[in-house]
Amino acid sequence: MAEVVARKVEQTREGGSASRTVAMVGAGQLARMTHRAAIDLGVNLRVLATNEDEAAVRAGADYVLGAPDEISDLRTLAGDAAVITFDHEHAPPEVLEQLEREGYRLVPSSGAKRLAQDKLHARKSLSELGFPVPPFATAETIEQARDFADEHGWPIVAKAPTGGYDGKGVWVVREECDLRDLESALSSGLLLEPHLELERELSVVVARSTAGETLAFPVAETVQRDSMCREILVPAPIPSSLAGEAERLAVEIVEATGSCGVVAVEMFVVDGDLMVNELALRPHNSGHFTIEGTETSQFEQHIRAVLGWPLGSVEMVSPAVVTINVVGPADGSNPLERLSEAAGVEGAHLHLYGKESRPGRKLGHVTVRGDDLETARETALAATAILEGGSEDV
Amino acid sequence: MAEVVARKVEQTREGGSASRTVAMVGAGQLARMTHRAAIDLGVNLRVLATNEDEAAVRAGADYVLGAPDEISDLRTLAGDAAVITFDHEHAPPEVLEQLEREGYRLVPSSGAKRLAQDKLHARKSLSELGFPVPPFATAETIEQARDFADEHGWPIVAKAPTGGYDGKGVWVVREECDLRDLESALSSGLLLEPHLELERELSVVVARSTAGETLAFPVAETVQRDSMCREILVPAPIPSSLAGEAERLAVEIVEATGSCGVVAVEMFVVDGDLMVNELALRPHNSGHFTIEGTETSQFEQHIRAVLGWPLGSVEMVSPAVVTINVVGPADGSNPLERLSEAAGVEGAHLHLYGKESRPGRKLGHVTVRGDDLETARETALAATAILEGGSEDV
Repeated sequence: MAEVVARKVEQTREGGSASRTVAMVGAGQLARMTHRAAIDLGVNLRVLATNEDEAAVRAGADYVLGAPDEISDLRTLAGDAAVITFDHEHAPPEVLEQLEREGYRLVPSSGAKRLAQDKLHARKSLSELGFPVPPFATAETIEQARDFADEHGWPIVAKAPTGGYDGKGVWVVREECDLRDLESALSSGLLLEPHLELERELSVVVARSTAGETLAFPVAETVQRDSMCREILVPAPIPSSLAGEAERLAVEIVEATGSCGVVAVEMFVVDGDLMVNELALRPHNSGHFTIEGTETSQFEQHIRAVLGWPLGSVEMVSPAVVTINVVGPADGSNPLERLSEAAGVEGAHLHLYGKESRPGRKLGHVTVRGDDLETARETALAATAILEGGSEDV
Repeated sequence: MAEVVARKVEQTREGGSASRTVAMVGAGQLARMTHRAAIDLGVNLRVLATNEDEAAVRAGADYVLGAPDEISDLRTLAGDAAVITFDHEHAPPEVLEQLEREGYRLVPSSGAKRLAQDKLHARKSLSELGFPVPPFATAETIEQARDFADEHGWPIVAKAPTGGYDGKGVWVVREECDLRDLESALSSGLLLEPHLELERELSVVVARSTAGETLAFPVAETVQRDSMCREILVPAPIPSSLAGEAERLAVEIVEATGSCGVVAVEMFVVDGDLMVNELALRPHNSGHFTIEGTETSQFEQHIRAVLGWPLGSVEMVSPAVVTINVVGPADGSNPLERLSEAAGVEGAHLHLYGKESRPGRKLGHVTVRGDDLETARETALAATAILEGGSEDV
């Protein structure tokens, strides 16, 4: 049973009403930035944290200590909140379904959330609904994987349907003999797809409110390094017809799948065409640019959406905006030590998540508004390089 | 002795360092919005709260319970923080001086802070430094007040040197017989000035860092109703030469008085000329527009300034920005009850402070960016009217 650590009775924390309390499963940086948005609105965010060092707890969000797979902890988190929503994918579908049977209101619903929890389920669902997805198959044996490669050519990409993030649980298989390393992963089933020649990766963050309103933020290009999203460029430098198509596609997917709250629709551009890669049914790294870049941030939009309020404007505030993730440097030092120096980069908006530094761990991001992507990106890279200890690896 | 209520040992709350802990005397909405900025920067803000219902505590700032005139409480607040700063004027000068003698670092210093705590001291200091101020005198008797009126004409304005805010402690004295009502206030000394014919009131928010860098935000026009600032229009609709003069004057005052941190310099425009009215040595209501309206908010700027970091850009993000204060309506209802409706006003950025509603109490503000002041003001008024229960009294 979780201990309620909130320093105040929740009903009074932000001036009174359960209708303005949002419970969020998870207490990472997404919850931290949702808390920041909740402060503006006078909304009380209560998060489920596994420990008191998590980013949202450090930022002062009301919290309950517990585990996302413990239904009793989730019940304690929910309390009298208007709604339960998510900062991650780790609450098991069957636990979420049980909560719904007990009458708790989940946004997104357990059924929609599975689209982000199970890549295979998502791929099949989107394909059945007629949305463009990469060719795919499931394999549980080396033979099945080899058959897929025979059809589509080497290399192939194998993905664990659940639990992967930032390149974890994803393998590029260059030739048949590499399959042997995957034998145990294969035994529980892997999603296979061809190793596509990607022109770009795009992300469209969409919000759909429980009242049925849907709005897409401008299309972002996401740039990966070491299998992790490092740069977010907005508007994506693509023809406006393709951008319009990406936004329409993302909105249609969110509506067709009955998703609510903020949803990130990640897409590939292959031979000029869009293919849907993955969905995240929560605020998403690719939407951090919205804090400074659009009239409403994805975090405020998520609160509006899950509470059924009117959605906020998604208009851009400047012609261009670039966000670059700050990653823990190899020497183990913490970017927080270099904050004051980075603060000297004019126009760089620094966001640090208060997390312990580990090499390769996302510790923050920098956003810069500008008249064009090039100069905004240069400024953001300069600040990021300082925070990461001068290791400008671009 | 104050009780340390922080849920975590302060040294670790935001990832480690005392050099990134800022102690703030007071826990009202200014501290709340400073906390919001601190979250972005990974800085730990610790506030002194008189009770747990205060706005910054509700937003999750680390806090110590205590009184601003109890030196032991201030010592507890300070702990290992890099610096002590302020959300209000209620810590007595002699207590602040004692803290400095004990080696605590106050920004602003106790000497500078007195400029905001004692209107008479400020008026005298600015006058001696050669800055333009309204004609003034001190009076402790009805006769002295009558002499001042004989020289400058009726009505006159009498101000309590300390403790006043939002029109409290300020009296317009229309004729001699009204002076009798002020007899007891006069006995402790009042600041007198002529009842000036104001063309406008302006405010320039300036930041000066402990490293000596000084930057002024764009000049705001402040519009008062019922002796309380209700509207903030930026850029102030005045000739650019006058705006330039106001900014120069504000910067010179901050530098000449040795003030550090964010300082609001309130000015009158009388017959086309500037006169300095009051100083606030802290983030200020007239600077709330900076959250959305300029590259750096006054709250982040204050953190940068008190920690000696480089100051952030004060460039405007849009051609115009308007902030309107949300005040508790006469029926005692709370604007929080009408949040979702107000959220439907496109472009309105809602800020609620989580305070209990009382008629006439500042409970929040609404900021709107736009291409011109008129349309931004209309939008902000529309949202404010909804929050205040439809009582559009303009």
